[in-house]
Amino acid sequence: MVIKDILIVLIAAGVGRIISRRVGQPVILGEILMGMLIGNLGIVNLTGILSDLADIGVLILLFSAGFSISMVRLKRFGKSSSLVAILGVIIPFALGFFASSYFGFARLPSLFIGGVLVATSVSLQTAILKSLRMLRSNIGTLIIESAVIDDILGIIILAILGGLATAAGGVFLNLSWIILGAVALFALSLTLGIKLARRLSATVHLREDDLLLLTLIIIFSFGLFAKGVGLEMIVGSFLAGLILSESLFAREIIEEIVSFGEAFFVPIFFVVMGLRFDVHAFADIGTLAMVILGVAIVSKIIGCGLGAKLSNFGWKASLATGVAMIPRAEVALIIAKIGHENGIIGSEVVSLVLTLVIVTTLVTLPLLQRFLAGVEAEATL
Amino acid sequence: MVIKDILIVLIAAGVGRIISRRVGQPVILGEILMGMLIGNLGIVNLTGILSDLADIGVLILLFSAGFSISMVRLKRFGKSSSLVAILGVIIPFALGFFASSYFGFARLPSLFIGGVLVATSVSLQTAILKSLRMLRSNIGTLIIESAVIDDILGIIILAILGGLATAAGGVFLNLSWIILGAVALFALSLTLGIKLARRLSATVHLREDDLLLLTLIIIFSFGLFAKGVGLEMIVGSFLAGLILSESLFAREIIEEIVSFGEAFFVPIFFVVMGLRFDVHAFADIGTLAMVILGVAIVSKIIGCGLGAKLSNFGWKASLATGVAMIPRAEVALIIAKIGHENGIIGSEVVSLVLTLVIVTTLVTLPLLQRFLAGVEAEATL
Repeated sequence: MVIKDILIVLIAAGVGRIISRRVGQPVILGEILMGMLIGNLGIVNLTGILSDLADIGVLILLFSAGFSISMVRLKRFGKSSSLVAILGVIIPFALGFFASSYFGFARLPSLFIGGVLVATSVSLQTAILKSLRMLRSNIGTLIIESAVIDDILGIIILAILGGLATAAGGVFLNLSWIILGAVALFALSLTLGIKLARRLSATVHLREDDLLLLTLIIIFSFGLFAKGVGLEMIVGSFLAGLILSESLFAREIIEEIVSFGEAFFVPIFFVVMGLRFDVHAFADIGTLAMVILGVAIVSKIIGCGLGAKLSNFGWKASLATGVAMIPRAEVALIIAKIGHENGIIGSEVVSLVLTLVIVTTLVTLPLLQRFLAGVEAEATL
Repeated sequence: MVIKDILIVLIAAGVGRIISRRVGQPVILGEILMGMLIGNLGIVNLTGILSDLADIGVLILLFSAGFSISMVRLKRFGKSSSLVAILGVIIPFALGFFASSYFGFARLPSLFIGGVLVATSVSLQTAILKSLRMLRSNIGTLIIESAVIDDILGIIILAILGGLATAAGGVFLNLSWIILGAVALFALSLTLGIKLARRLSATVHLREDDLLLLTLIIIFSFGLFAKGVGLEMIVGSFLAGLILSESLFAREIIEEIVSFGEAFFVPIFFVVMGLRFDVHAFADIGTLAMVILGVAIVSKIIGCGLGAKLSNFGWKASLATGVAMIPRAEVALIIAKIGHENGIIGSEVVSLVLTLVIVTTLVTLPLLQRFLAGVEAEATL
């Protein structure tokens, strides 16, 4: 029964949130874990309606992600954060790809596993930095800026992987077209799109409930447009977020859409992702899982740490930067979802990615606390 | 494609709203008409996901309806409004039942057609009274109070009809149990439920996004509970609204849930109801349609007018009261939906009910303007 399934998922999300807050962890961790729990206990199955609502949740989630990236602010970002972000994307991607290939995965699944390791979760990272009261610090700014840039790179990689996944036959032939399409769409959105958003929002007057309806129409339209040109829908909704954040209604939009999404669609997405966890399949890939988890943690420390060091930060500050970039969540889950739905990766890899989200989130805070003490010592030298 | 269907319905809702406002009519009229249009043009079909989202929309809509009925205020309502409401329920129900029977409908479908004519739409009526600036007047208060009471009576009739519709075999044997269940649930909610809501809401502290999640959990739980005892789910969500309106979070809940519902689920419900309009089936029942539309209008004028006259209002004020009670919408549509989904009424009757909503809304404002002039003259005698 439709309403019963939804109710169970909402209760799971609520319980997950409460537990997460009690133990001082981000709420999505509890939501995913509760999903894993009720899924493996057979309390609820991944039905059509849940999957559809989760899909809407992803669109809203990526819209919010795009929205929170202010293009105006982005232009003032320094070279350091770009370097941290780029090295923090290349090294995890390459190491993930090679490790998976070594374990016998074919080229496309290996690319997906590499892709999963790319994007740091801005939302998780922000929560962690906030709890350490270092959001406004020098190194805090470097970290957040890097995560924002690597989010954009992650979405571009996701767009390409998604294109590869759905391209019928001759997969690698289509690659150049997909990349071209993705780059063109990003460029168009960031120039013409933002200008249009500013112009149009200056001329119309909207009631609050109409604004939310219009925002949803824009999110879905952009999603379908992206799909129409061979990309993933969420690429479109991400771009819609980027663009609308420059409109005059920005503040109202984000308030409305966040409370709209956070109460229903987004938690359903995380719980439903948890439902995909297959404890038996996961148990079968013990060694691979340990290696990929290790790669996920080490590759960000090396990649981002190197970027920070090359930007003349101290050793300990560079290490702390690398550690702060460890948490993965939204983009990793979405890449896993796309790979799974297109039959590229099996449920054992999806289970691995779910574990990855949980482990990378759990290790970051204690590691960061440890290394930050060193940073302060370094600064006072 | 799921997102495409949803997008089309949202755009239809948006266009319907804009047109409605332009011509000074309630937005749901435009939403229904746009649904009728895109449905009959074959632009979108009634798919599973649309139907599911519409079902959630109904639950939220009836929750809001229950919420807006303050039990505290209700206790101060006068005898006049009860009399207007009760006569305004009995006479349309009886006339609708007999007219349908006369046209050859069996007993159960005739009961449904009678039921459709029962409940005045509080939301439509409020919009109309507001546009005439008579919400706060003496007669305005009588009208709104009567509509609120007749909404409750309408829900009870809906509960009974829904129970009859789904009761397997020996339909009329179950009637007493269904009535007993409905009355018991209402009584329990209005006593224990409200007390509990006040107590519990005084002890817990909730974040805004959790409050909305919790409210949705309560709405769905009450819906499933109602279903569990053999009633319609919306009866449960209506009661949840009645109860939560007495909690200490009342103001935050209604703001959140209304903007949540109004932007997505509720417009989807109205557009999706419009999709059920079958122009060919409707054309076949021309005479019946005219008769039922006539009965819908005349029976409210007679029933409610009589109630007002017996309460010592003047002739013209009584007439105006009757006219103001003409508009039907939510409850009528839901009764039609339940009847249709259970195979009790065909799409020709559903089409008739959609027409009924539009016609009763359109005739009320001009009729009321005409008769109100008379009321003022009467008052100045």
